Amino acid sequence: MDRSDLVKLLDDVRAGVTSPEVAARRLGELPYAEVAQAVVIDHHRELRTGIPELVFGASKTAAQIAAALTELARGAGGALATRVDAAKARELCALLPGVVIHEAARLAILGQAPMRPAAAPIAVVCAGTSDLPVAEEAALVAEFLGASVIRVSDVGVAGLHRLLARLDDIRGAQVVIAVAGMEAALPSVLGGLIDRPMIAVPTSVGYGVSVDGLVALGALLSACAPGITVVNIDNGVGAAVAAVKIARLVRT
Amino acid sequence: MDRSDLVKLLDDVRAGVTSPEVAARRLGELPYAEVAQAVVIDHHRELRTGIPELVFGASKTAAQIAAALTELARGAGGALATRVDAAKARELCALLPGVVIHEAARLAILGQAPMRPAAAPIAVVCAGTSDLPVAEEAALVAEFLGASVIRVSDVGVAGLHRLLARLDDIRGAQVVIAVAGMEAALPSVLGGLIDRPMIAVPTSVGYGVSVDGLVALGALLSACAPGITVVNIDNGVGAAVAAVKIARLVRT
Amino acid sequence: MDRSDLVKLLDDVRAGVTSPEVAARRLGELPYAEVAQAVVIDHHRELRTGIPELVFGASKTAAQIAAALTELARGAGGALATRVDAAKARELCALLPGVVIHEAARLAILGQAPMRPAAAPIAVVCAGTSDLPVAEEAALVAEFLGASVIRVSDVGVAGLHRLLARLDDIRGAQVVIAVAGMEAALPSVLGGLIDRPMIAVPTSVGYGVSVDGLVALGALLSACAPGITVVNIDNGVGAAVAAVKIARLVRT
Amino acid sequence: MDRSDLVKLLDDVRAGVTSPEVAARRLGELPYAEVAQAVVIDHHRELRTGIPELVFGASKTAAQIAAALTELARGAGGALATRVDAAKARELCALLPGVVIHEAARLAILGQAPMRPAAAPIAVVCAGTSDLPVAEEAALVAEFLGASVIRVSDVGVAGLHRLLARLDDIRGAQVVIAVAGMEAALPSVLGGLIDRPMIAVPTSVGYGVSVDGLVALGALLSACAPGITVVNIDNGVGAAVAAVKIARLVRT
Amino acid sequence: MDRSDLVKLLDDVRAGVTSPEVAARRLGELPYAEVAQAVVIDHHRELRTGIPELVFGASKTAAQIAAALTELARGAGGALATRVDAAKARELCALLPGVVIHEAARLAILGQAPMRPAAAPIAVVCAGTSDLPVAEEAALVAEFLGASVIRVSDVGVAGLHRLLARLDDIRGAQVVIAVAGMEAALPSVLGGLIDRPMIAVPTSVGYGVSVDGLVALGALLSACAPGITVVNIDNGVGAAVAAVKIARLVRT
Amino acid sequence: MDRSDLVKLLDDVRAGVTSPEVAARRLGELPYAEVAQAVVIDHHRELRTGIPELVFGASKTAAQIAAALTELARGAGGALATRVDAAKARELCALLPGVVIHEAARLAILGQAPMRPAAAPIAVVCAGTSDLPVAEEAALVAEFLGASVIRVSDVGVAGLHRLLARLDDIRGAQVVIAVAGMEAALPSVLGGLIDRPMIAVPTSVGYGVSVDGLVALGALLSACAPGITVVNIDNGVGAAVAAVKIARLVRT
Amino acid sequence: MDRSDLVKLLDDVRAGVTSPEVAARRLGELPYAEVAQAVVIDHHRELRTGIPELVFGASKTAAQIAAALTELARGAGGALATRVDAAKARELCALLPGVVIHEAARLAILGQAPMRPAAAPIAVVCAGTSDLPVAEEAALVAEFLGASVIRVSDVGVAGLHRLLARLDDIRGAQVVIAVAGMEAALPSVLGGLIDRPMIAVPTSVGYGVSVDGLVALGALLSACAPGITVVNIDNGVGAAVAAVKIARLVRT
Amino acid sequence: MDRSDLVKLLDDVRAGVTSPEVAARRLGELPYAEVAQAVVIDHHRELRTGIPELVFGASKTAAQIAAALTELARGAGGALATRVDAAKARELCALLPGVVIHEAARLAILGQAPMRPAAAPIAVVCAGTSDLPVAEEAALVAEFLGASVIRVSDVGVAGLHRLLARLDDIRGAQVVIAVAGMEAALPSVLGGLIDRPMIAVPTSVGYGVSVDGLVALGALLSACAPGITVVNIDNGVGAAVAAVKIARLVRT
Repeated sequence: MDRSDLVKLLDDVRAGVTSPEVAARRLGELPYAEVAQAVVIDHHRELRTGIPELVFGASKTAAQIAAALTELARGAGGALATRVDAAKARELCALLPGVVIHEAARLAILGQAPMRPAAAPIAVVCAGTSDLPVAEEAALVAEFLGASVIRVSDVGVAGLHRLLARLDDIRGAQVVIAVAGMEAALPSVLGGLIDRPMIAVPTSVGYGVSVDGLVALGALLSACAPGITVVNIDNGVGAAVAAVKIARLVRT
Repeated sequence: MDRSDLVKLLDDVRAGVTSPEVAARRLGELPYAEVAQAVVIDHHRELRTGIPELVFGASKTAAQIAAALTELARGAGGALATRVDAAKARELCALLPGVVIHEAARLAILGQAPMRPAAAPIAVVCAGTSDLPVAEEAALVAEFLGASVIRVSDVGVAGLHRLLARLDDIRGAQVVIAVAGMEAALPSVLGGLIDRPMIAVPTSVGYGVSVDGLVALGALLSACAPGITVVNIDNGVGAAVAAVKIARLVRT
Repeated sequence: MDRSDLVKLLDDVRAGVTSPEVAARRLGELPYAEVAQAVVIDHHRELRTGIPELVFGASKTAAQIAAALTELARGAGGALATRVDAAKARELCALLPGVVIHEAARLAILGQAPMRPAAAPIAVVCAGTSDLPVAEEAALVAEFLGASVIRVSDVGVAGLHRLLARLDDIRGAQVVIAVAGMEAALPSVLGGLIDRPMIAVPTSVGYGVSVDGLVALGALLSACAPGITVVNIDNGVGAAVAAVKIARLVRT
Repeated sequence: MDRSDLVKLLDDVRAGVTSPEVAARRLGELPYAEVAQAVVIDHHRELRTGIPELVFGASKTAAQIAAALTELARGAGGALATRVDAAKARELCALLPGVVIHEAARLAILGQAPMRPAAAPIAVVCAGTSDLPVAEEAALVAEFLGASVIRVSDVGVAGLHRLLARLDDIRGAQVVIAVAGMEAALPSVLGGLIDRPMIAVPTSVGYGVSVDGLVALGALLSACAPGITVVNIDNGVGAAVAAVKIARLVRT
Repeated sequence: MDRSDLVKLLDDVRAGVTSPEVAARRLGELPYAEVAQAVVIDHHRELRTGIPELVFGASKTAAQIAAALTELARGAGGALATRVDAAKARELCALLPGVVIHEAARLAILGQAPMRPAAAPIAVVCAGTSDLPVAEEAALVAEFLGASVIRVSDVGVAGLHRLLARLDDIRGAQVVIAVAGMEAALPSVLGGLIDRPMIAVPTSVGYGVSVDGLVALGALLSACAPGITVVNIDNGVGAAVAAVKIARLVRT
Repeated sequence: MDRSDLVKLLDDVRAGVTSPEVAARRLGELPYAEVAQAVVIDHHRELRTGIPELVFGASKTAAQIAAALTELARGAGGALATRVDAAKARELCALLPGVVIHEAARLAILGQAPMRPAAAPIAVVCAGTSDLPVAEEAALVAEFLGASVIRVSDVGVAGLHRLLARLDDIRGAQVVIAVAGMEAALPSVLGGLIDRPMIAVPTSVGYGVSVDGLVALGALLSACAPGITVVNIDNGVGAAVAAVKIARLVRT
Repeated sequence: MDRSDLVKLLDDVRAGVTSPEVAARRLGELPYAEVAQAVVIDHHRELRTGIPELVFGASKTAAQIAAALTELARGAGGALATRVDAAKARELCALLPGVVIHEAARLAILGQAPMRPAAAPIAVVCAGTSDLPVAEEAALVAEFLGASVIRVSDVGVAGLHRLLARLDDIRGAQVVIAVAGMEAALPSVLGGLIDRPMIAVPTSVGYGVSVDGLVALGALLSACAPGITVVNIDNGVGAAVAAVKIARLVRT
Repeated sequence: MDRSDLVKLLDDVRAGVTSPEVAARRLGELPYAEVAQAVVIDHHRELRTGIPELVFGASKTAAQIAAALTELARGAGGALATRVDAAKARELCALLPGVVIHEAARLAILGQAPMRPAAAPIAVVCAGTSDLPVAEEAALVAEFLGASVIRVSDVGVAGLHRLLARLDDIRGAQVVIAVAGMEAALPSVLGGLIDRPMIAVPTSVGYGVSVDGLVALGALLSACAPGITVVNIDNGVGAAVAAVKIARLVRT
C-alpha cells in the first residue's frame, strides 16, 4: 500500500464509501496467507521489492518446502526453493510430482517462472571447479527471475591467460557475478579489467585457514579494485537477486 | 589496449610501419607515470574501469598525496584523495593552495571534477548521527564521479516513523547506499520496503562487541532481505564507486 | 536457610533444644539427594531462587534424565527436561511411560506442573519460521513455570507490515521475549515501538558468517534501542526463566 | 500515534474537518526537531517506549552534546548524556553553565529530571573497585529515570563472605544489576542465592585474554544460574534502562 | 645422561676402556625403541621427567595403541592410553585381552601400574555432572601415577551450599584439580576459600558461545583469585600429571 | 571463621555469653575495612588462602594505590602493588615517601615483607630479553611472598646450548616458572628435560599474529610435554603466587 | 608464450606467414583442454611454473578425479591427485585400474612420473606420529616431482635427544620440510641448529585450543629462529612444491 | 661444536692433553657474551645457522640496541637492528655516531657488513605504495646478508599491465619476495607466471576487516598457486633471511 493507495482509501472514507473502522482495519490488514505446516507466505513481497519470496530450504522440512512452493506457485505460476539437499530433494519429488531439482545447485523449481521485467544479461564468472555449485545457484536463480546469464567457468588467476581469453564474453554482460573461494583473487584482478558493476560471492571452498570461507570473504571486502560489492559466503541467491535488480535498471 | 588496438598494431607490423621489436615493446609498455615521491599514477585506469584512480590517503604522507593529486588533476582536470585526516589536511593546504578539504568526510579535492557519463540519482541513507562521516564520504565521492545524490539522515530503526516518512525521497533514487553501525538493522528493514539495488556500508561506530564494525558487517551480510550487497567497514568510497557504476547503466 | 532460620536455630541452641554440635552440622547440612545415575538433585533451589531445577538434557543419558525427572517430580508433582533430542526422547518414553515430549522444542515434561506464583502474561515473538523451535522452548518453559504466553510468529522485519499488524497483541503482554537469528533486526525495531522489558534470544539459524549465531548475538548486544537484554544463543530456557521472574513482580 | 489516534484522524476526515491530503501528510509527519549541529531529537520516544532519548556522547562533539541536551531539556525539564570523557566535560561546562558532570561515570546531566512513573528499588552490585565507573553509570541513569538505587560494591567471589554479608541489602531490591569484569563469576554465584530478575553487565576490566571484556561477556552468557540476562560490555546505561522498565511493573 | 654420567664416560675414554669413536656414538645414542606400527617409545622419559610416556590415543589406530601399550608395559609393568573412544576400545579389547577400559574417562590401562614415588593426596573437584568424564580422566591418571585421589562432584556455584559442605574434604588434599565448563566460576570461588595450589581444567561442556570450552578457558585464565593455573580444554591428563609432580614434592 | 570458631561461637550462645542476635550478626560480620578512596581491604585473605591481598594497580589511581598499600602495610608490615606504570610510580613516590619502585617489573613495595612460611627455591626462566619485565615481576613477587628465586635469563630455544648450559641451575629449584613470548617454545623443550612442576607465563612480546600474546598462550596450552600449567598473558604475579603455594608444600 | 615467442609470432606476421587476425586469435588462444566432467586441464602450467597441475581431490568426485588424472597423464606420462579419501580411493580404483593409492597420505598416482629437472635432496622432518600423514604427503609429492627425500620421524622437542641424534641426517639435505602440530616447537628448535632453508607445515593435530591447527600456524609464524617460512595447515603438497623449486636451484 | 670437534676433544682427553673435568666443562661452555644492558649476544649463531644475530629493536631501549650493535659489530665488522622507530633512531644516533638509519624501513646499520657467502639475486616485488616500508626492510636486510636485490614496486593486480611489464625483471632473480597487504592477490597471480621459489610477506596495510594484516595473511596461506610460502605479517626480515638461505644454494 503506497502513498496513492492511502489517499484513495482516505477519499473513500470521506465519501462515506468506507467507514473509519473498516479503514483502520484495512490499514493494518495482513497481505499474507498462513499455509499448512505453519509457513507464512508473503504474496505482496514482489510488489514491494520486485522480487518474489524464495523458499529458504535449509531450515525447513521437505513437507514445509512443498507447502510453500505450492502456495507460492498457485499465485505466481512458478516458485523456487534453495538449499534443498539430496535427501530433501528425494522427499520433495515424492510430495510434488512436477518439481524440478537442480542437484549441484541444490535448487527445486515448481511450475513455470512467471513473466518478469526485462533485464540486461548477467555474467556469472567462476574461479575454480569447486566453486561451480554456488555459481550455478546464482545463474539459475537469475534465470528464474527473468535474466539471461553468460556462464564463464574455471578462470582462476593461477592461469591468468584463461581469464584474459574470456574477457570479451564477460564484457558482453552489464553486471558481473564473480564466485571465488580460497584466497579469492579473481574479483580483484577482474575488477581492474572491466567497467561493469561486480558482485562477488565468497565460497567455503578451501582447507586450513580457508576452510569456512572467512578468508575469501575478508579478501573480497579488502579488494583494492574499488566498486566490488560482496554477499555472504556461498550466497549465490543473494548475488543473483542483487544482480537482477541492477540488470532491470538497464533499459535494453 | 583492447582487441581492436591489437589488430591495428599487428596491421602496422605487417605493413612495415612498425617493427616487430617496437611492437613487442609497445605491447609491454606501461601506461603510467612515476611522479615525485615514488607514487605511481595509473592514467589508463579510467579507460579500463570507468573510474579514475582515487588517492588512498591513509598510508601516504601529505607530500605524496599532493604529488598524486597534482599529477592526476593535470590529466583529468580534477582529482580526489580519501582518508585525509586533520593533520594531513593542514599540511596539504599549505602544499596545494587550491585544494578543497571536506573535514568530516576526510576528503581532499583538487580542481574541477571532469565531465563524466550521465548517472541516475543515488540515495545515501544514514542510520545515526555517528554514521554521518562515512555517509558524507560516499555522497561526495559519488558527486565527484558525476552522480546526483539524495541525502537522507538519522533514520535508524529505533524510530521507525522517521524512516517511513522519508521513503518517498529514497524511492526517488535508482540506487541506494545505506550506511549503518551498531547492529546495522536499517538495511534489513529498508530492503523489505523498496525495489532498488542497495549497497550497505557497515561503520565502526559502537562499543563493546561492536567497537570495530565487525558486528555491523556480519549483520549486513546476514540480512534476510535478499539482494543487499556489502562493502568493507567504513568504506564509503567503495560504495560510491559501486553505486555510480550501477547508476550509469540507467539510461536517463 | 535464611536469616530468621538462623536466629531460630541459635535460639534452640540457647534453649538447649539443640546441641552446638548438631547445630554446626545442620549449618553445613546439604539439602540435596543423590539419585541413581549420580545425578544430584537440588530440592531447595526453588526456595532460594523461585525457580525449580530444570534438567539440562544435552549432556545426560536418557537414563540420567529419567532418574532426575522422577526424583524432581516426586517432590514437586512435575518436572521438565530440556535439549532432549529425538533419540533420547524415544528412550525416555520407554523408561518413563507418562512423560510428554514436545518434539520441536526438544522438551520432556513429567507429571503436572505444580501451582506456582501468579505471573503476568509474556509475549514470545519470533522473526522467522526457522526460529520456531527456540521460541517454542521459551513458551513451553514459561508455561511450565506458571505464566500465560502470547505467541506471535513470523514477524521478521523484511515484511514490516506483519510486525505492525501484531503490535496490539504484543502490547497485551507485560514482558516480551524476542527470538531472532540471521542479522536479528527484529528486537531493534520492536524495541522502538513498545515500552515493555524485552529479552532477546539470538538463534543459530543462518549460514556463512551467521552459521553459529554469533552475528545475531553481537547484533542484539549492539541494538541501539536501549533496554534490550540478551541471553545465550538458542537459550529459550534462560529467556523464559528471566521473563517469568519479571512477570511475577507484576501484581495482577 | 496509536490506533485510537488513527480512528480519530479518520473520523475527522469523514467529518470534513480534515482533508484527505492533510491527513495523509499527517500520517507521515515527523515528530522530531532538527537542532543546531545536525542532531535530530526524537521528542516522541518517551511516549512510545517509556524512556526519554539519552544522548550518546561518545560519537558527538561537545557542541553537539550541548545542543542535544538543551533541546531535550527544553521539553522535559532535564536531560542526560553518556560517555562524556574528561576533555568533552570541560568543553561542555563552558558551553552549558548549569550542566552537572559525574566524572567517574562519564555522565552529564542538565536540569532536573522530570517526574517519572513510580519504580521499585534497584540494587546495583559490583564485583571489584575497577568496575565502579560502569556500576555508577548504571546507578545514576536509573536514578535519572526515577528509580531508587541500592549500591553494593566490592563483593567479588574471591572473598565470598563479603557477598554473603550484603545479601539482605541486595534482597531489599526488586531488580538486580550485577556489574563484573575479569572472569565475571559474581552473577553466577548471586544468581543461585536470590529470586529477583538479574541483569548482568560485563566490563572491559582485565588484561591478557580478558583485556576487552569478551571473556566476561562470554562467561555471563554461559552462567549456569538460569534467568540471568546480559547487556553489551560496559553498557551501564542499557542495564539501567532495562532495570527501570522492570521496576516500573512492580505496583509499589 | 646427566653430568656425572658424562664425566664417567670421559674417564673411561681417558682410561682407554672406551674409544673416542664409541664414546661419540654413545653420546648420540638413542634411548628408544621402534615398535611395530611405527610408534616410537621413549623408555627414558620417566627418568628425565618423572612421568612415564602416556599413549595419546586420539590420533592412533587401535593397533598402534595396542603396540605402544604392550611395549611400554613390557618395561614398566603397566601402561596407560588416553582418548580411547568406544570403537577403539572394542578393537583394543580384542587385540589386548588383559586391557582394562574406563569408558567414561576414555582410558585404557594394561597391566599393573608400577610402584611410583610417594605423593600427597589430590582432590579432584567437579562443577557439574557433565564435567565428570574429564574429572574422572584426571583422577584415574593421578591414581595410575601413584597418588591417592579425593573425588568431590557436582559442587557448582549455583548451589553454593553444596560446595561449602564439601570444603573439609577438599582441604584434606594438598593439591586441588578443579574441573569446570560453561562459565567456569567454581575455581574462582574455591580459590578464595583454600590455600592449596589449584590446577583448573576448562571443559567443552556448553552451548552457544560456550560450545567449545573457550569461554571456560578464558574465564579461568582471568580468575581474580590469584594462584590458579590452567591446562588445555578437557585436558584431564595434563592436570593429573602437573598435580602429581606437585604432590610428590610433599614429604608425607 | 572456620568450623572450630563456629562451634566456639555456638558454645558461647548456649552459655549465654553471647546472645543469638549478636551471634547472628557476627556470623555475617565483615572482616574487612573500608579505607579512604573507596578501596576495600581484605585483611583475612591471607588467613584463608595463605597469600595476602596484592594491590592490582592497573585500574586504580595513584591515590587509591597509596591508600591500599598503607592500609595493608599497617596490619602486615609490608605491602605490594602491581602494574604501577612510570607515571603512577612518580605520583606514588610523592604520596608515599618510603615506597620502593621496581621500574621494569612495574611493582611498588611499601615496608618490609612480613615473615612468611618457609618455601623451597623457585627458578624463574626467561626466553628472551623482551620477556624480562614479566619474569622480574614473577621473581620479585615470589621473593615478597618469602621464597628464594633462581633467575635464568635469555635461554630461548633458537640457541639451544644456552638452555642446556643452565640446566643444573634450573634443577636446583623445586618449582619452575618459565616465561616466554612469540611462539613460546621454551617450556615445551624444558618440560622434556626436568621433572619439576612448571608454570608457564605467556607474554605479549611479538608482532603480527603474535602481537597480543594469544599465540604464545595457545602454544603453551598445547605443549606436548605433559604437566605444564599456564597463567594469563603477562601474569607474572599469578605465576609467582602459584609457585609459592607449591614451594611451601616442600618440607625443607 | 614468453617474450621470444611473441617476437617470433610478430616476425611471422611481418613475413606474411601469419595473418593479423590469426595472430590476434593465437595471442588469446587457450592452451587448455576441456575434459569430460567439466574439469579443465592446464597443460601449459608446467611450462610457466615448472610444476605440473596436481589434481586437488577434496572438492571433486571420483569420476572427476579419474578424468583429470587420465587427461594429465596422457600428456605427461604420470599424474597425481591429492586429498583422495578412502571412499574416493575405492571408487577411483574401480574407474582407473592402474592407479596407485597411498592411503595414509591420501594420494593417488597414475602412470610413471615423467623425468623432471635434477633436484637436491629434501629432508621431511616430523614431530609426532600423528603428523605422519601430512609428512608423507609432502614426501611423496616431492618424489613425484623428481626430488629424493630423507624421512626423519618422531623427533618432537619433548624428547630432545631424539632430534639431536638425527641432526646429521637432516644436514644431509639442502632443504628441510618440518611438519608439526600442537604447539609446533620443533621448527623453532631445529631452525637454531641448521643453516638450510626450512619450510614449516602446521598440522591440525591437537585438541582444545589447538584442535584445528591455528595455534600451530601462529606459533610457526612467530618462531624466533629467523628464516622459517610457512604454508597452510596440513598443506604437505604446497611445502613439497616450494621445496622442490628450491632444490632445483642447487646445481648438484 | 659439531661431531668432528667432539671426536677431537675426546682424542685430547684420551691423550691426556685435556682432563675429563675440563672437557666436561667445555662441552657445557657458553659461546656468548653478556654485554652491558643485559643483552646477551650469540656470536656462534652465524656458524650454526649461516645468519648472524640481528637485533630486534622493538622490545629494546635505544641503549640496549646500541650495546648490542656495538658488541656484534666488534666481532663481525658490521651489525644490523630492525624495528628502530623514529624516536629510538634519534637516540641511537646520539649514542652511536657512526650508525646509519634507514627511516622508512626502520633499520639501523653499524659498520660494514662483513663478506658473506655468494648468493644469487633476489627480487623484492611490492603491490602498493603503502607496502614499500616492509619491502624495503626485506631488501636492505637481504643486501646486508650479501645478496643483490632487484626492486619492483607498485605492481598491484588492479593494474595488471604494470605487473606484466615487469615480468622479465622479476625473472632475472632466482628467488622472489612478494610483499602485499589488503587482499594480497599479487602473489597468487605472480605464482602462476613464474617458476621461482616465492616467499610472500603479508602487510598490515588496510582498514576495516583488513586492518591488522590477518586477511592478507589468510589469503596468502590460501593462495591456489602452489609453492608459495609465507612469513609473519610485516616480517620483511624473516623473508629476507629465508630468501638469502635459498639464494646461497645457487652455485653462481
